[in-house]
Amino acid sequence: MARFLITAGPTREYLDGVRFLSNASSGRMGMALAEAILEAGHTVDLVVGPVEVAVPAGCEVVRVETTRQMYDATLARLEYADIVIAAAAVCDFRPAVLREGKLKKTGERLLLELVETEDILAEVCRRKEHRFVLGFALEAADGPAHARRKLRDKGCDAIVLNGPSAIGVDATSISLLTADGAGEWSLTGSKREVARRIVEWTLVQNTRGL
Amino acid sequence: MARFLITAGPTREYLDGVRFLSNASSGRMGMALAEAILEAGHTVDLVVGPVEVAVPAGCEVVRVETTRQMYDATLARLEYADIVIAAAAVCDFRPAVLREGKLKKTGERLLLELVETEDILAEVCRRKEHRFVLGFALEAADGPAHARRKLRDKGCDAIVLNGPSAIGVDATSISLLTADGAGEWSLTGSKREVARRIVEWTLVQNTRGL
Repeated sequence: MARFLITAGPTREYLDGVRFLSNASSGRMGMALAEAILEAGHTVDLVVGPVEVAVPAGCEVVRVETTRQMYDATLARLEYADIVIAAAAVCDFRPAVLREGKLKKTGERLLLELVETEDILAEVCRRKEHRFVLGFALEAADGPAHARRKLRDKGCDAIVLNGPSAIGVDATSISLLTADGAGEWSLTGSKREVARRIVEWTLVQNTRGL
Repeated sequence: MARFLITAGPTREYLDGVRFLSNASSGRMGMALAEAILEAGHTVDLVVGPVEVAVPAGCEVVRVETTRQMYDATLARLEYADIVIAAAAVCDFRPAVLREGKLKKTGERLLLELVETEDILAEVCRRKEHRFVLGFALEAADGPAHARRKLRDKGCDAIVLNGPSAIGVDATSISLLTADGAGEWSLTGSKREVARRIVEWTLVQNTRGL
């Protein structure tokens, strides 16, 4: 039995008490992965941002909102994991200042200073040791080139590349690239089908590495 | 039979192909209002931002994403309405520039220029004629003062004041303020119960105005 640690859903970075930066990630891919893992008889620690979709029964769940919270929750659970799948669509930027209350319209333009958030995947990879780490890359253009760079820069074992069209919908079309260059294959189907194939493949990779 | 026009849910304002500014509005209050109106035998035109909650059967629905889209869809349907309830949590700011693709981390701070979005409620009120218009104000602090100013500045007939704690959850606690100063009352309960009371009250106001 393998222990999986999954991150899923978006994160949110607030600029005031009401408004935030985020993206349309629904968490469906992460939930589909968790379901496939549980069905295959393994365990799941799930760190999930704000999503409306139901979490599969049987997961250990930590709900978070911001990138910092997801970073802390993920690293705190890393030591118990055999395999990490970082499927969350993390918000890469946060407002430098969090304003209290609700920012009012003034009729003027407003300059919002953004700073980069914690890099969860890179930090997981720095501390990964024997663990197999699968990242996700959401790329709008030049997908394979960006995904290959991300794979190398972050130091994960493999990366799933998908496009903005996968956000918030059930069907998906992904490519999977490995760090050793051994494989690059594509999958199209429902997130449930694609998730099952990814999980099967990940388990084989993990066995090889042990 | 009265014809209602309702706006509901959040809007999103993109800074690139993936990331946006928004808020956590779930659309539940708008859906509860629509349900209460349909149950009372009236009709609903619903203009709704991106939400995961189900839209009650029997509504005429237009799904939108940005404030500009909600503005256009709402004004296009205004002439058919007797009563307008603006329950949407509109994103008041949008990035001045929409970048193509996905903004990359550079290690540098980033300045995002924001400009104000269309004021849907104010424009509805400018064109309202005989229509009864109920706005919503989400205020973090000094709620009654801000709501009273919004009521006056936008020119609506009444306004529902609620706080950030109402966002995304089922229970709510609101105050209702009228332009003529005749009433200010508070309601606490499920969004379903509160919505039914608001709709009943709105129908009485509409009858008085005819």
